[in-house]
Amino acid sequence: MQRTQEMTSVQPDWENFYPRPVSDKVPFFNKDGRVYDCLFAQQFNRDLLTLLFRTADRLREVTQHKDGADYVSGLLSDKRAMLYFAQPSTRTFMSFLNACHVIGVKTSEIRDTSTSSEVKGETPEDTVRTFSSYVDMIIMRHPAPNFVEKTAWLMNRTGRPVPVVNGGSGKDQHPTQALLDVYTLYRSFNGDLDGRHVVMVGDLKRGRTVRSLSYLMKNYSGIRLSFVSPKEFRMEPDILEFLKRHGIPYEETEDFKGAMRTADAIYMTRIQDEHDKAGESKAVDYSPFYFKREHLKDIKENCIIMHPLPRRHEIDVAVDADPRAMYWRQERNGMWARAALIAYIFGVDGKIR
Amino acid sequence: MQRTQEMTSVQPDWENFYPRPVSDKVPFFNKDGRVYDCLFAQQFNRDLLTLLFRTADRLREVTQHKDGADYVSGLLSDKRAMLYFAQPSTRTFMSFLNACHVIGVKTSEIRDTSTSSEVKGETPEDTVRTFSSYVDMIIMRHPAPNFVEKTAWLMNRTGRPVPVVNGGSGKDQHPTQALLDVYTLYRSFNGDLDGRHVVMVGDLKRGRTVRSLSYLMKNYSGIRLSFVSPKEFRMEPDILEFLKRHGIPYEETEDFKGAMRTADAIYMTRIQDEHDKAGESKAVDYSPFYFKREHLKDIKENCIIMHPLPRRHEIDVAVDADPRAMYWRQERNGMWARAALIAYIFGVDGKIR
Amino acid sequence: MQRTQEMTSVQPDWENFYPRPVSDKVPFFNKDGRVYDCLFAQQFNRDLLTLLFRTADRLREVTQHKDGADYVSGLLSDKRAMLYFAQPSTRTFMSFLNACHVIGVKTSEIRDTSTSSEVKGETPEDTVRTFSSYVDMIIMRHPAPNFVEKTAWLMNRTGRPVPVVNGGSGKDQHPTQALLDVYTLYRSFNGDLDGRHVVMVGDLKRGRTVRSLSYLMKNYSGIRLSFVSPKEFRMEPDILEFLKRHGIPYEETEDFKGAMRTADAIYMTRIQDEHDKAGESKAVDYSPFYFKREHLKDIKENCIIMHPLPRRHEIDVAVDADPRAMYWRQERNGMWARAALIAYIFGVDGKIR
Repeated sequence: MQRTQEMTSVQPDWENFYPRPVSDKVPFFNKDGRVYDCLFAQQFNRDLLTLLFRTADRLREVTQHKDGADYVSGLLSDKRAMLYFAQPSTRTFMSFLNACHVIGVKTSEIRDTSTSSEVKGETPEDTVRTFSSYVDMIIMRHPAPNFVEKTAWLMNRTGRPVPVVNGGSGKDQHPTQALLDVYTLYRSFNGDLDGRHVVMVGDLKRGRTVRSLSYLMKNYSGIRLSFVSPKEFRMEPDILEFLKRHGIPYEETEDFKGAMRTADAIYMTRIQDEHDKAGESKAVDYSPFYFKREHLKDIKENCIIMHPLPRRHEIDVAVDADPRAMYWRQERNGMWARAALIAYIFGVDGKIR
Repeated sequence: MQRTQEMTSVQPDWENFYPRPVSDKVPFFNKDGRVYDCLFAQQFNRDLLTLLFRTADRLREVTQHKDGADYVSGLLSDKRAMLYFAQPSTRTFMSFLNACHVIGVKTSEIRDTSTSSEVKGETPEDTVRTFSSYVDMIIMRHPAPNFVEKTAWLMNRTGRPVPVVNGGSGKDQHPTQALLDVYTLYRSFNGDLDGRHVVMVGDLKRGRTVRSLSYLMKNYSGIRLSFVSPKEFRMEPDILEFLKRHGIPYEETEDFKGAMRTADAIYMTRIQDEHDKAGESKAVDYSPFYFKREHLKDIKENCIIMHPLPRRHEIDVAVDADPRAMYWRQERNGMWARAALIAYIFGVDGKIR
Repeated sequence: MQRTQEMTSVQPDWENFYPRPVSDKVPFFNKDGRVYDCLFAQQFNRDLLTLLFRTADRLREVTQHKDGADYVSGLLSDKRAMLYFAQPSTRTFMSFLNACHVIGVKTSEIRDTSTSSEVKGETPEDTVRTFSSYVDMIIMRHPAPNFVEKTAWLMNRTGRPVPVVNGGSGKDQHPTQALLDVYTLYRSFNGDLDGRHVVMVGDLKRGRTVRSLSYLMKNYSGIRLSFVSPKEFRMEPDILEFLKRHGIPYEETEDFKGAMRTADAIYMTRIQDEHDKAGESKAVDYSPFYFKREHLKDIKENCIIMHPLPRRHEIDVAVDADPRAMYWRQERNGMWARAALIAYIFGVDGKIR
């Protein structure tokens, strides 16, 4: 209990803590100089990214043979994780779950919070603390933007903290998506991201993946960005400010065909109409921002096409068979990147590399 | 990617592929001379059945002791399966899940497709491909008759196919149910199915188990079949044609008491009123097709009573205690037969036998 | 099958069996002098409690290191349990699930009975028997008071019984909650429960935990009980009778502040308004039965504060940081106590201690 009281005295109240800038908050979620709670894409610097990517690369190599797979899945056989998904997302859920399988972490699932004790008048904080009692890690997705962070903050005040991994909170943070996106660039370019031209396309205003990706580009040098979108869904000013501050050149354009010619990576996104206030998405002609089969001849031979998925019509299904279509492998990269992250948090990444 | 293109060029389009007779399609779902995707009962020939049954027999023997169980559950410790059940069936689900446990395959579950990304406008094909990214096998149940087959077909066109096992598709195919039914006959008769009199009873028109079972009887010689049903629910002509073509004698009758006297196996079924169009089941007196306690004295000493379950009133609960009541063991046989099938598909069945 | 018939002839019909006093029924659920089906708190005598607590203590010790955790999780690697939770209770579910993870039992889950075959007209007895086919243990929670017991009774009549563990049945029995409550006392007092003053507070009329706890106090000597409740929710006469019969002194009072001064343990409960018939809970002022921050100075230095959780307002959140607040550890004790119980039922508890 001594520990609890110590932490309580060090950390400010939640109301004072939460509004601070992310950069101020990051140290509270580290432990012994390593990321402990993974909450923000901003927690990934270049060194950590490289470390995680090398771990992920090694994981997929080693697990190709049964001996290696058994070795890896024995590293964390004493650990239990809870996947608390208050917001449905089978895609992210499956990716994390199988990442746990790869490295041997046992899992329990909460995918429908309506069955939890919350119905009996318990506070969400108590509910989460309850479930944390039984496990060594919480992987959490929640619709409320602050809930995952608050859980981590709260856990750190208890006598028995467990690391919290953000599987998507509100519309702002989804750090492991950012991780897998950069990992896909890293793998496609054999680790050499510097000097690349990255083209982001679609609903840039409301897509959190393109925001995080833009942010993480500051870790690499000579990057050039093109933001291709209808004028209604342009990238938000805060990101543009950020890029200026870090000296990352960018252009905003509606000319997709022009931008794609020099692209090393084209990051497609779908229209995020679930965030519409009054059906505004319907008023926009999104078709100039589709990647069609005929575009394959217009892009560089080793340009990659990415998409966070799910897609609607942004990418023609006929494109899937092209070797440059990277989105399915991008999705699979998510499992490996997440496995690497979990291994890192539990401190066994060194045993994998 | 080379592989993808090769397969694409070899396989016809889905619209041309799907309507072909099953016998034409079977080779597309094989690999290296073995069943790769298990979709149709027609994929089981006598040799394969015997192989799977011997594997299943050996599995239950070996796992009786902890050393053997640990050996078996280590054989596929590097494999991950997804159970994608778009149609609720806890029975089949549990059977497959525990089969995976027996042979050490790690599992992830999709039991409610409403929580998947399908809601965001993704095609079902993309959804399935997404989930397949993380696993080495898909075990799938789906209400649409063609969906499981299409998934397998589609997977085989990608650069990363994984085997697909049909856990029930539409009202036609449920190959592992057929497998466990024949396995139950095999075990009950010590491997000697030839020359048996099999009596099928009930709603033969709409029950898919009796259809598959009839079909698989062609693998054994000297089989004699009796179809006992109300006239409204007689076996469909296509099966009767099939039997004639293969020289398997059958009779159609409403005289249950007469047929049961010489039976080696009585296969009871419930009325499938979920397929009613206008409550037609209510108009039928089904009670002459019940197996009652007093019938136990009328059947042969080593006749077995089977039922795919769930039952309603077709079999008196008082019959359960009789050694000839085989339906509970039949159910358990399902787990072993499925474990054997999965082991076979992953090529480790030889290490079990 | 011989075994089935033998058991059938020994056991009376359910209708005659069920109404008997628990003490009469207990032997039917034992095997070889040990508890086989764990259904009633009354099955725990002092010796068994001590055995389970020592096992639980050892489990948490051993699993602190990976070698120990791997040893323990290998003990039951050949066993499969089904968690059949017809009544939602994520808390108890998670506790049992992770208990299984600790000792290496593989699990399958039924958390929503609406997806089971019950919809096709199967009896609940058949449904349960079906699921039991695949597993070595059933852990069951059910809203009907007799369902779990009937399942155990029924399983014992089959040729393939599996042990049944009661995870909460109706409003009466929840033996593993009682187990963890006494375990919390045991740990907090270093195994010395004799002579303690235990104060139970709140809705004593309708809370099953305080009933079971009172009952189990007969296993210890010199216990003194205080029942602190609003007059509308006093402890039921049957428990008071039981205490008199066993010579356990108790007082009933509304004076919480008076009772807490000498308490060794304060067991808080919430108002059970889900059992209201006509909103009667609203008419009661429950606030005198809250444990507030300022009470911390009024209780003994080593008095512990317990709560079965979830809580509403009975305990001030500010109390959580006090070392005497035991409820979070109590919750975690549940996982260890349940793991010990399962290990005991499978007969490997000796290998842990």
